[in-house]
Amino acid sequence: MRIVVLAGGIGGARFLRGLKRAVPDADITVIGNTGDDIHLFGLKVCPDLDTVMYTLGGGINEEQGWGLTDETFRLKEELAAYGVGPEWFGLGDRDFATHIVRTQMLGAGYPLSAVTEALCDRWKPGVRLIPMTDDRVETHVAVTLPDSGSAAGPGERRVIHFQEYWVRLRASVPAEAVVPVGAEQAKPAPGVLEAIAEADVILFPPSNPVVSVGTILAVPGIREAIADAGVPVIGLSPIVGDAPVRGMADKVLAAVGVESTAPAVAEHYGSGLLDGWLVDTVDAGCVERVEAAGIRCRAVPLMMTDVDAAARMAREALTLAEEVRAV
Amino acid sequence: MRIVVLAGGIGGARFLRGLKRAVPDADITVIGNTGDDIHLFGLKVCPDLDTVMYTLGGGINEEQGWGLTDETFRLKEELAAYGVGPEWFGLGDRDFATHIVRTQMLGAGYPLSAVTEALCDRWKPGVRLIPMTDDRVETHVAVTLPDSGSAAGPGERRVIHFQEYWVRLRASVPAEAVVPVGAEQAKPAPGVLEAIAEADVILFPPSNPVVSVGTILAVPGIREAIADAGVPVIGLSPIVGDAPVRGMADKVLAAVGVESTAPAVAEHYGSGLLDGWLVDTVDAGCVERVEAAGIRCRAVPLMMTDVDAAARMAREALTLAEEVRAV
Repeated sequence: MRIVVLAGGIGGARFLRGLKRAVPDADITVIGNTGDDIHLFGLKVCPDLDTVMYTLGGGINEEQGWGLTDETFRLKEELAAYGVGPEWFGLGDRDFATHIVRTQMLGAGYPLSAVTEALCDRWKPGVRLIPMTDDRVETHVAVTLPDSGSAAGPGERRVIHFQEYWVRLRASVPAEAVVPVGAEQAKPAPGVLEAIAEADVILFPPSNPVVSVGTILAVPGIREAIADAGVPVIGLSPIVGDAPVRGMADKVLAAVGVESTAPAVAEHYGSGLLDGWLVDTVDAGCVERVEAAGIRCRAVPLMMTDVDAAARMAREALTLAEEVRAV
Repeated sequence: MRIVVLAGGIGGARFLRGLKRAVPDADITVIGNTGDDIHLFGLKVCPDLDTVMYTLGGGINEEQGWGLTDETFRLKEELAAYGVGPEWFGLGDRDFATHIVRTQMLGAGYPLSAVTEALCDRWKPGVRLIPMTDDRVETHVAVTLPDSGSAAGPGERRVIHFQEYWVRLRASVPAEAVVPVGAEQAKPAPGVLEAIAEADVILFPPSNPVVSVGTILAVPGIREAIADAGVPVIGLSPIVGDAPVRGMADKVLAAVGVESTAPAVAEHYGSGLLDGWLVDTVDAGCVERVEAAGIRCRAVPLMMTDVDAAARMAREALTLAEEVRAV
């Protein structure tokens, strides 16, 4: 079975770990979000790709869900001693190696997809991990900063990098707009459209529908390829009981005018893209609404408390895919 | 008193620490060798500049004479896990910060001299440290590698980077030629010629006469400026009792046809450049030979066993400068 998964960071990575356990012999291609990429200290950092790679490769820091286990932060402390920041982005000493190797390979002319493959040679995630694009796409967020006492005065409107919004500000101010800068000009990376065309099923894990899955879909050609693939496209709601399972998806959903509920996210994707949608059992009451939108819907437990729970969710998604296929 | 010092790495740095103790109020400008610079992992590494900066700034690993104290090597281990080398060059986690800041600033368009000044803002070496040039100069060494059992067969002639010769091979094969690649086209960094012109005395510490001081002198304009400065130019022999005090200076002296003795090095610099030369007391017998070459010579203890010993050597050098000036 050939499965294509559109993955963001922590949620996508943990779902993928469950999927691998659920169907160990499946041929899994992960199309990874690169909209959260950022250049730090002259290095190219790809947080979502790395979270998938580290999680599936057994290197992840389990507690925080990102970064490497057994990590130290001496290099970052030295950079701070030089007065070089940002200090709010936690790059560990081990993690730096990934970004140094990536940056060196990019500088030598390799595209990000080839670099990602080379990095995965070491981590062996057990899936084929492809960045959504080899082109530069960086999500930015329009915000109005609270009064900082600065000369700019209160209510200063700024467009900031997604990581600055997410990590530094912890999404503490409303996102007024979310823009995947560069997406319109980006081309899908080699292998992305082919994997979609050859897939038996396409899954949207419980990743952020705006800044993760939404950014991948913003690369021209990917949404169309999924819609035209003629195979079941099944999503899992990242919203449980009107709140994000993890992270701050509600903050960026508001920016695109979508309420933070499981059915609203399904409707946001739309029946033109999505064939099936899993909501949590606490949201069983909304199944009817989703199905009224032309999307087959089931209510199952969606809390990824451990790998087994994620595996059960993956099996439910594949079961729903078979239901869709049988129609 | 304005003192200009042409410095390589460990020997130059330790001498400078003594010089600062000997004349704490002196205005010291260090012209640093950059011929041992190397690009590693996409980062610009300047070993001699850093050794001076770390030594005078109190960060040096005293035992080994290079690198930072209290160092760890986790990033390097991760790079090795990616199969990315070289493994023979010991970059520590803290040290990496220096190279990352430097590389980022160079990438932003700052010349190496401005970058070095910015790095020194943090370490406060108490001297003005200027790279000999902002242009790229990298010393290479021609060697004949011993039979490695490879297809290339025995006696393969290769031109390798100085660091590969010095650090990886530990100068275990003869250097057949030493070439400061790029030196001919290099210009002295801003401030170098001005410092020389305004100096009251110019010192050559017991640094390597070929790959440290020699490389600095290979930048067009620097040798001439020193010869024309009209102030005492005093050197300290890096060879004591026919062997280098530290390092493997004898290996590269042979490449330029100079025997590894204190008087031969003085003659190599020549009376057109050098006014005074300090040899160790064990080499007192050669004073006459050096003076016959037109270079005033004194035999004093030249073993930098500690900072006080280095300070005594610096005082002897300044005393010899006064003798020269009085003539």
